[in-house]
Amino acid sequence: MLQGDSLSLARLITLVERESPDAPEILRLAGPHAGGGHRIGFTGPPGSGKSTLVDQVTGRLRAAQATVGVIAVDPSSPFSGGALLGDRIRMERHYRDSGVYIRSMGTRGGHGGLPSAIERAVMLVEASGKEYVLVETVGVGQTELDVMDAADTVVVVLVPEAGDTVQTMKAGLMEIGDIFVVNKADRDGADKLARGIETSLHLSARESSWTAPVLTTQANEDVGTEELIDAVSRHREASEASGELADRRRRRMATQFFKTLEAKVHAALHDVIASDGEVRTVVDRVENGEVDPYTAATEMLRDRELVRNWLSALDS
Amino acid sequence: MLQGDSLSLARLITLVERESPDAPEILRLAGPHAGGGHRIGFTGPPGSGKSTLVDQVTGRLRAAQATVGVIAVDPSSPFSGGALLGDRIRMERHYRDSGVYIRSMGTRGGHGGLPSAIERAVMLVEASGKEYVLVETVGVGQTELDVMDAADTVVVVLVPEAGDTVQTMKAGLMEIGDIFVVNKADRDGADKLARGIETSLHLSARESSWTAPVLTTQANEDVGTEELIDAVSRHREASEASGELADRRRRRMATQFFKTLEAKVHAALHDVIASDGEVRTVVDRVENGEVDPYTAATEMLRDRELVRNWLSALDS
Repeated sequence: MLQGDSLSLARLITLVERESPDAPEILRLAGPHAGGGHRIGFTGPPGSGKSTLVDQVTGRLRAAQATVGVIAVDPSSPFSGGALLGDRIRMERHYRDSGVYIRSMGTRGGHGGLPSAIERAVMLVEASGKEYVLVETVGVGQTELDVMDAADTVVVVLVPEAGDTVQTMKAGLMEIGDIFVVNKADRDGADKLARGIETSLHLSARESSWTAPVLTTQANEDVGTEELIDAVSRHREASEASGELADRRRRRMATQFFKTLEAKVHAALHDVIASDGEVRTVVDRVENGEVDPYTAATEMLRDRELVRNWLSALDS
Repeated sequence: MLQGDSLSLARLITLVERESPDAPEILRLAGPHAGGGHRIGFTGPPGSGKSTLVDQVTGRLRAAQATVGVIAVDPSSPFSGGALLGDRIRMERHYRDSGVYIRSMGTRGGHGGLPSAIERAVMLVEASGKEYVLVETVGVGQTELDVMDAADTVVVVLVPEAGDTVQTMKAGLMEIGDIFVVNKADRDGADKLARGIETSLHLSARESSWTAPVLTTQANEDVGTEELIDAVSRHREASEASGELADRRRRRMATQFFKTLEAKVHAALHDVIASDGEVRTVVDRVENGEVDPYTAATEMLRDRELVRNWLSALDS
């Protein structure tokens, strides 16, 4: 994998994703080789053309001889149907290119836990030597915003017709965007939207040496892709110079540490709960409304025996 | 609060939301009084008119002398700006009505934890005697889907122009909807969308005695509201008769129990971490890239002293 072999990379990501017993060792060995890539996150409402934009950016980076990894984050298992199939077809031209690695990952069911799995996958892609890692989300929601923590540069992609959607969501997106893209810029309202975003950015006046640019693209026609890549380079240089890039990476590492700690504690707790008859009795009483869930949880944690078992599970 | 006083209800929700030391006692005392209301969840893309629909449903239920609580779930703190201000103005006609209680709640930052805070608030609203509790989300994402676990009847609200959005998201929404509403039904494509949803529902063929109806509304004009309320009543009767309602409530109680357990364990872990100098040293090493976060977390949990402190924190 360290030599850039895609099949090895795919296998190791799967092992780490499934929390195989080898996962800790894989991460320990890969860790020192990661951190060399630039991570570009793409987020925005469904239908804003993020996949097409990621496809065009990939094409341009490849034309400049850079290697690219793409992680498409799939917010819930049902999405493995229509939308992603479309994405796969669009990305097909890159599938046989050994300089591009593409992977879809789900987040369903893993609150707080799975953005962490995405972070691990990105780390492995970096360790395999990819110079750029593009992380793309399907929709916009809390999980998707969290996924963007993994990025060095966050690109928010919007479309003119987003209308109410943008009204509703821009606050959350305004905060995280390093670069804004109005895609499908040939449609009515594109300039108005771009100006609106600029005004909002101006009003929010973040404490930062970087002023987020607002670009227009037509990803279907590959219009504006080069300007986007230039803006990413400028953001990278500016955030390296200001120390922001290093700060983000430090925060990311600390977050990963705490998330891993929490995930391990959860897993151990669930093991104990699953194997403990007394816990099952309490759950039955909660389900039947004999005791409220909050009181039952408080009492459960006073149970020394349970807590001891749980500690043993943590150790193993 | 048990006598329906809105000010007391607001204060108790705030205490529970902020995890005041009185929260466990409040929940223990309120618990036996909850469970009497019917909970209707409203979800769907931003801009689909959920707030207006909730407003009209509230008006109709009040006209029939029923009392109503409304919890508007606000996926992230920045949303307290534009969109929700609009909602508040729309709901204004109900603000002086003591038979209606309205509350906005955030979910930001509380993965998996905060849908649980919403569940607790809904429980308090029920305990205060409201016969219907309407839970409304702003957007659609994993967090919002989870919020719908708190509902007895889930209403999915879509609009004709949703287009790609619906294509992308319907899989997740299809699974959770008990009733589908095509709002803004005077616009082009409404019938096509309604038929498309019916086809999808037919194809997914869930194992259930309830077939989700697809209704059309124009919430701005109060068209279709009565039919929606009828459909909710039919769903309630059907799910009572089939045992589905009881099953959902049992599952909800068990989920609350496990979430509370996890939240307490997290809080205790964070207390220990915050006050432990040795942990701080490890975090520094992780931030500086001297050790990878996964290896550091694994080693940390082998530290008997830390784990002992953490257990004491759990007990308090």
